Formats: sequence, C-alpha cells, structure tokens
Amino acid sequence: MSKTVAGNFFEDFSLGQKIVHATPRTLGDGDRALYTALYGSRFAVQSSDEFAKAIGYPTSPMDDLLVFNTVFGKTVPDISLNAIANLGYAECVFTNPVYSGDTLSARSEVIGLKENSNGKTGTVYVRSKGNNQRGEEVLSFVRWVMVRKRDEKSAAPAAVVPELSKVASIKAGMPRLNIVKWDFAQSGSPHRFDDYAVGEKIDHLDGMTVEEAEHQLATRLYQNTARVHFNQFAEQGGRFVRRLIYGGHVISLARALSFNGLANAFHIAGINGGRHVAPLFAGGSVFAWSEIVDKTVHGDVGALRITTRATRDLPCTDYPIEDGTAEKPGVILELDYWALIPR
Amino acid sequence: MSKTVAGNFFEDFSLGQKIVHATPRTLGDGDRALYTALYGSRFAVQSSDEFAKAIGYPTSPMDDLLVFNTVFGKTVPDISLNAIANLGYAECVFTNPVYSGDTLSARSEVIGLKENSNGKTGTVYVRSKGNNQRGEEVLSFVRWVMVRKRDEKSAAPAAVVPELSKVASIKAGMPRLNIVKWDFAQSGSPHRFDDYAVGEKIDHLDGMTVEEAEHQLATRLYQNTARVHFNQFAEQGGRFVRRLIYGGHVISLARALSFNGLANAFHIAGINGGRHVAPLFAGGSVFAWSEIVDKTVHGDVGALRITTRATRDLPCTDYPIEDGTAEKPGVILELDYWALIPR
Amino acid sequence: MSKTVAGNFFEDFSLGQKIVHATPRTLGDGDRALYTALYGSRFAVQSSDEFAKAIGYPTSPMDDLLVFNTVFGKTVPDISLNAIANLGYAECVFTNPVYSGDTLSARSEVIGLKENSNGKTGTVYVRSKGNNQRGEEVLSFVRWVMVRKRDEKSAAPAAVVPELSKVASIKAGMPRLNIVKWDFAQSGSPHRFDDYAVGEKIDHLDGMTVEEAEHQLATRLYQNTARVHFNQFAEQGGRFVRRLIYGGHVISLARALSFNGLANAFHIAGINGGRHVAPLFAGGSVFAWSEIVDKTVHGDVGALRITTRATRDLPCTDYPIEDGTAEKPGVILELDYWALIPR
Repeated sequence: MSKTVAGNFFEDFSLGQKIVHATPRTLGDGDRALYTALYGSRFAVQSSDEFAKAIGYPTSPMDDLLVFNTVFGKTVPDISLNAIANLGYAECVFTNPVYSGDTLSARSEVIGLKENSNGKTGTVYVRSKGNNQRGEEVLSFVRWVMVRKRDEKSAAPAAVVPELSKVASIKAGMPRLNIVKWDFAQSGSPHRFDDYAVGEKIDHLDGMTVEEAEHQLATRLYQNTARVHFNQFAEQGGRFVRRLIYGGHVISLARALSFNGLANAFHIAGINGGRHVAPLFAGGSVFAWSEIVDKTVHGDVGALRITTRATRDLPCTDYPIEDGTAEKPGVILELDYWALIPR
Repeated sequence: MSKTVAGNFFEDFSLGQKIVHATPRTLGDGDRALYTALYGSRFAVQSSDEFAKAIGYPTSPMDDLLVFNTVFGKTVPDISLNAIANLGYAECVFTNPVYSGDTLSARSEVIGLKENSNGKTGTVYVRSKGNNQRGEEVLSFVRWVMVRKRDEKSAAPAAVVPELSKVASIKAGMPRLNIVKWDFAQSGSPHRFDDYAVGEKIDHLDGMTVEEAEHQLATRLYQNTARVHFNQFAEQGGRFVRRLIYGGHVISLARALSFNGLANAFHIAGINGGRHVAPLFAGGSVFAWSEIVDKTVHGDVGALRITTRATRDLPCTDYPIEDGTAEKPGVILELDYWALIPR
Repeated sequence: MSKTVAGNFFEDFSLGQKIVHATPRTLGDGDRALYTALYGSRFAVQSSDEFAKAIGYPTSPMDDLLVFNTVFGKTVPDISLNAIANLGYAECVFTNPVYSGDTLSARSEVIGLKENSNGKTGTVYVRSKGNNQRGEEVLSFVRWVMVRKRDEKSAAPAAVVPELSKVASIKAGMPRLNIVKWDFAQSGSPHRFDDYAVGEKIDHLDGMTVEEAEHQLATRLYQNTARVHFNQFAEQGGRFVRRLIYGGHVISLARALSFNGLANAFHIAGINGGRHVAPLFAGGSVFAWSEIVDKTVHGDVGALRITTRATRDLPCTDYPIEDGTAEKPGVILELDYWALIPR
C-alpha cells in the first residue's frame, strides 16, 4: 500500500460512500488577519468584535468564505485531486457561525455519479459538511467535479444525478440578532433591505490585481492541496502554461469587492449555486458586479438573493455576462447567494 | 442615491465638517504577526510580552505604525479616494497604547480648505482621531491632501489654512514605565538617550526590496481602499503605468530598518511632520538613514527628535537628502518624529 | 562606538564566548496561521487544538520548525551576518513544546573555531539554545558557518573542531502522550511506525514554486536579518545576481511536502544533521523525497530516523541524491532527523 496519496479516480467513488477528511483545523485570530490581508474585506460584523457584540454575536464571527474555503480545502485530497474541473456548487448553507478557537473538520458523502460519454472522465457529486469541535454542523454544500478515470476500459456505474434545489434553504443557518443596534455610520453605508430592488444592478467599481504569492498563501492557508495552484514546474508543460488560481480565491475577492455597494449585506446565509466560468491567472485584475434577483424577510433581517459576477481584466460598467469566450477578458465567476441585511 | 462610494471631491468638503469613518477593526495577534512578516520589525517592546511587562506595559503593545496605518486606512474612503497626492502630516500624537483585542474606529474634522490656482484641484486639511472600544483616543493627526474638483467651474470656498505646530506635543501620549527594568542585552543595543547627540547621523545599512504582493497584503490589512495600490489594469493606463505603493508602507519599512542604529527607540510618541517626496514601486529597494535633530527628557525616559529619510535604490552611506529628481534613485520619504528611549 | 550592527567577523569570535541574542519574541496564533499560509502544513497535532488535546498536549503546539526558525533568526545578527555559507547543523533537539503566548529568547556559545587555509575565512561552530519565558530550554542545536575575516593578516586562533554526535540524543525532548487516542482518519493516513521499513523510499510527489514575497515574509517573520534574502539592489551585483532564499524556508517546505507519505510523523524530535547543498531562488519549484534510515521505540511512540532531500526543479520519482552540480536542477537540501510517529 503506497504511503502517498495520489488522489481518487472516477472508479474509486461509489454511490453512498462516506468519507472522513483530514486534517482538523483550529481557526484563530491569525486566520482572521490573513483573510483581511488577502482580500481587504471590510464588513463590520467580521471586522469588529464590538460591532458584532452590539447586534448579538458573542464576538466577531469568522468570515463565511474563510469557513467555506477551509472546509472545501479538506475535501480536496479525497474528492478533487484528479479533478479536471470544478463544475458547480449548490445547496450551500452556513448553519452555525464559527469563532476564533473553533476547530473545523469535514466529511462528505457521494450522492451522484455519471460517466461522461467520452469514457475518459466522469462527474462525481458530493455533499460535504463541516463541523465544529462540539459536533455542530457549520456548513453544508454540494459540489460536483469532473474526475479522470484511472482506466478508460473500466465499466461505467449506473448514472445517478441528484436532484438539487435551485435555491438553498437558509432558515437553519439564521443567527438570532438584535439588529436594531446596527450602526449604519460604522458599517459604511446607509442602505438597508428596503433600499434594494429586485432587478437592481450594482457595479462594485474597484479592481484588484492578483499576484502568485497571494493566491498561494491563501490556498495554503485553507490547506488546499490541489497541485495546479502551486507547481509552476509541472504547469508550464500543462494546458494553461501557468498556475491556475483556486476558484475560492476568486469568490472571496468578489465578495470583498462587493462591499462597495453591499456594505450592510453582512452574512452569506447560503449559496444557491456557483460556477467558475473561466480561469484566473496571476497578473489578472478582478472586478465584480451584482444583481439583486430576489428578496425575502426573515424576522428582523432581510435576505437579498444576489448574483455576483466577477470578471478578469474587464471593468463592470456595462454589467457583463458570460459570453463563452474564456480566452478574452470577461466573466470568470457567477455566484448566486443569499446575504442577510438589516431591514 | 448610488449604492457605491466613488469618493468625495473638493466641493464635497466644508470647513468644520465632521466625518465618522467605517469600518471598526479589532486588532489581534494575527495583525501583530503579519506586521512582523511584512517589515521584520525587531523592537523588543512590540515583539515580546515579557519584555513589555518588565517595563510596565500590561502586555506587548501593537506597533505604533500598525495603529497609524489602521486609523489612516479608515479615513481613505471619505478623505482621499480622489486624492492626487498625500501632501503632508503634522501634529500626530499617539495618545494611548493599543493592545491585542482592542477595537479601533476613526473620525475626522475638516480644518482647512484651499483651492489651487489652476481651479482644478484643492487642498483639504483634516484632523483625524482614532479611538478604542472604551472611547479613549489612541491617535490624533492632521494630514492634507490634494483632491480633484468634481466641476472646475464650481466656486472656490474661502481659503482657510490651519496653523499647525512644527513640533507635536507628545506629553499626552507618554506611557508611565518602569524603565530601570530595561534589558539592553535583549533589546539588541547598549545605546541609550545619552549616547545620541544632536546632529548625529546614522546610516541604517540594510536595504529591503518590496514586492507587489507585500504592499498589497499590507495595504489591505489596513483596509485602505485607495485604488492606485491594487489595480494594475487601471494603473497601466495611468501616470506611473504601475501600482503605486502606499506611503504608510514606506514609513513602516523605514522604521523597521532604523532598528539597526536605534534599537532602543522603542515608541514613536508623535510625528511632527512627514512628506512622501517621491513614489515607490514594486521592485524598488528601500534604504534609510536618520539624523538626531533634538533631545528632551520626559521623566524616566528621553525623547529623541529624529528625521528619518527613506531612499529608493540608493544606499545611505552619504546621507542623501531630497534633490527634487523623483525619476532617479533618491529620497522618497522624510519623517520627523519623537521616539522614546531609555535614559 | 558605532550605533549600527555590521555583524561579527571571524576575529570577533573566541572559544567559549557566550552571546545573548536580541530580540525576545512572543509567538501566537498569528504566527501559526502565517506558518500554515507559507507552507500549507497539514500535520494534525499542529493544526488542531482538539487533536492535540486528545493525545495529551495542553493545546496545539507550534510547529517545530517555526520554533527552529525563530530561534535561528535571533542568532543571525551575532553569528552569521557576515557568513559566506551555512555549512551544517548537528545535535539539534527540541526539548520542550512551545505554545501560543510563549516568549522565546536565544543565546549561543562558541564551541569551535578553525581558520581556512586561504587565510581569508574561517569556520565558527556555535551551540545555540532557545528558552521560553520560564527559562525552560525549548531547543538546542549546533551549527557551523564560514565567516569572513576582517583582516586577512590577523593571526589564526588555535584550531578547535568540536566532536559532534552523528545522531541527536532525543530522549530529553520526548513529550508524554496518550497516543492510543490518535485518530488515523483525521490525521490523513493509516500508516504507523510498523508500516515503515528501514531503507524505504518515499517520493512526496507534490511540488511548490516559491515567490520572492513568500520567502521574504517568512524570513522577516523569523526576524532573520541576513541581507542576502532581502536586498535585490545589493544582490544584483553579487555572486547570484538574485536574492538567496533562506535555508530554513527550504527545510519548512520540505517538511510540509513530506506530509504526503509521512502524515503521522507528527513531531520532529531532533535533527541529526543538515546541509544546504545548493541554493534556491524565487521561481524555483521545490520537491522532496524521504528515506527511512533507522527506527527506534520510545515508550508509546516510535521514532523514525528519516533523511529528507529537497530538490529544485526536479521531481523525485528517481530519488535523486547530490551530484555536485549546483547550477543544474537537483538536490538543494539533505536533512537527517528523528520524527515521532504512533506505534
């Protein structure tokens, strides 16, 4: 039995298979600071213990996407080390807040398998869950990845494609807050739930150029071991000739950029769906724009359903959407999520 | 009303105007570690809880310039997003130490306005203050910036230029210390107050090359949103063709380099004045030298008034001063400050 | 007396000389997070407070090599600022674990001196020790460096070359653990002491490309002031034309890569010897492989004696060893150490 992990191939997955992922990870003040340094995020709840306490959190919670990226990272060695592509996300719910000192671990279940018609690859669907040290679930999400077969001649399993909700059910993940204490001067914007209209489009204006050192630091912080992000020696002979930037880095950048326009959208309650439409490489500048696609009320807070698109080397003045030209400047990410905002 | 912040123009400021800045920020152990990693600072008080406690601090305080950069960063979206230049600093006093877990917020008052003769820009003078979660002031400083007018035809306000002290009054910011417990072996130098003479010049010897990833990480850590530091896509068509490095990054580098020669100058009590004489870009190597320009005694400690000059791609063997040639290697920063040192 | 430190030359060292190094340093959660971001280490004991507590640690200890690099960094201004080469390490023992909040300081004793036959340089042998705030030793190691003479004409001291053990005595540094609580699913591998055979070779598969910003951040985090790592302006006229990457950065990278194959080798108890065989520069991709060279039992745990070799731009499929061609892709590090692993 080999001592090293070379990753699972399509044949290694079976429907209903349950996987416990290594390595448990205690998140702390250092992770919070690094997350700020990597993305420049300014949402007040995640930035200030005092602001968070005023509205009912015991202390400032970790950024939702730091939690997402940490749990995602744990699943990589078992799920996607041999993945050709991360095809999509669905049914992602942030079930409980994570605080400094909490230890996260992750497990997954295979919920779908479908070999591709070329006989060389297949799609694996997994539901992954992150838990804290008390066994409480903090995050649950489905993702599906295209994985190579070890042997093209091996028989295809019965195709099972899970039915996935188009909209994440976010009720389980709603924090109980004393939202009347929200300080709109400190939070950076006067705009609340009622100020946003379905169909409204917001160009987040700012752009951020990504360096190799930055995405590598981030991806290692998440203990994500996918090789395409780190090994220029190998990648220079590969499809892109360069290291590919981890998609979660793009999601975190887009969310941080969205502060300018969505400053009070303080918590990602759930992600309905997400797609990495085109790759990002170091030297590319990321812009973002958002569209409000739905609104619902949850007690004291409102939830905005938002589609945020990130672009590469393309300002978002004209609200660009995917046009299928991955080689040109254009959209690289579409993320459909629920964000909570004071009413 | 636009959801996004595009920054204030000269016409948007009025004399006496008070501004509450977003976003409050809790500083912690992670910020301390990142600050060390970004600048390699080695001052013992800020590096060691034990050293700090021995001389009377409750624990190791945050580096003064981490506090400065954090408060400064908060003022950017309101004050200098459309600034053409940071013209100067004055009357900067560090009023109370900041510790891990403290939450900083910032506010400013407009204390001067003067339109430039070209009718296109004006100078805005603001006094900014940082406070901790108990409402105690931790930092106060004046800065003035050249800001674009929105409309060249708009009328000029009455010109008001504040009278600013040439020397910061640092008494309010003096910590009470048991300085006899200072350990000169651990601090890295035997040199104390009496060993420094007015007029003495010190070449700090070492040079530090700055990478894009480093200044971007730093500037985001401070939640400073000034676009010129982050967006290569926009800057490649701009005046410098490159991203401009945040001036506070240069100040922090110069201070860290000054350890070699000023190892016991443990606390910046105040900044009398500062000017960013020329820009710095990634790939540039920063050197520094200092001149002792005054000395005063404050109880157990002495205060050295120091002018530290940072240079770009120019060793400081010959103690270079500004010669007005921003395109060549040369001085990029002049910083005139009070540093405390054991007597 | 000059205020600045230009480093000691060969003549400045005397046999039996004792040196107290500056600057004491409190390690915290931020250092832990940065270490993870810099190397992507995934060993469960250092990653998770819960995992560490389950087997008997009071909380997750700091990575052994973060401790090593921190103590090493302190010795640089006194020992190796004028070093031409770090020649080797021996008798390195990790005597006590280090936890978040501990403050480390360092001191050294000169245990050997030998002028080289060219009369221009000499080798200095020092034993360095790191202590925590309670005065307990956390680390002890010998290293020897080639240092320039200030004056080629100065007389050579009597040559004293210490006798150094080929194998570090690790008993003093053994933690008492409740190793039956080890969770092999969470740790990332089922392989324990008995699964490894003397003579076994493991290619760790993965490669990691190093950026300038990364090694500079790391080396500053360790407060290591060796100029060759930071100053491109000076180095462009030097032997390598580029900044040289700190050897401890390579050791930490190799150890992190070795997780894939040695996931349960949770603690470096001691380093028997180490050599930096060839330099590493930014842009280089680091690979690693390990050979099991000995095994011993220490109560509940086993100790594997491992030689890990790191390479530059050379995958380790064929288990390369040094071939003396520093200019080509090849081995850059040989590290001979004891790692503890559950039986």
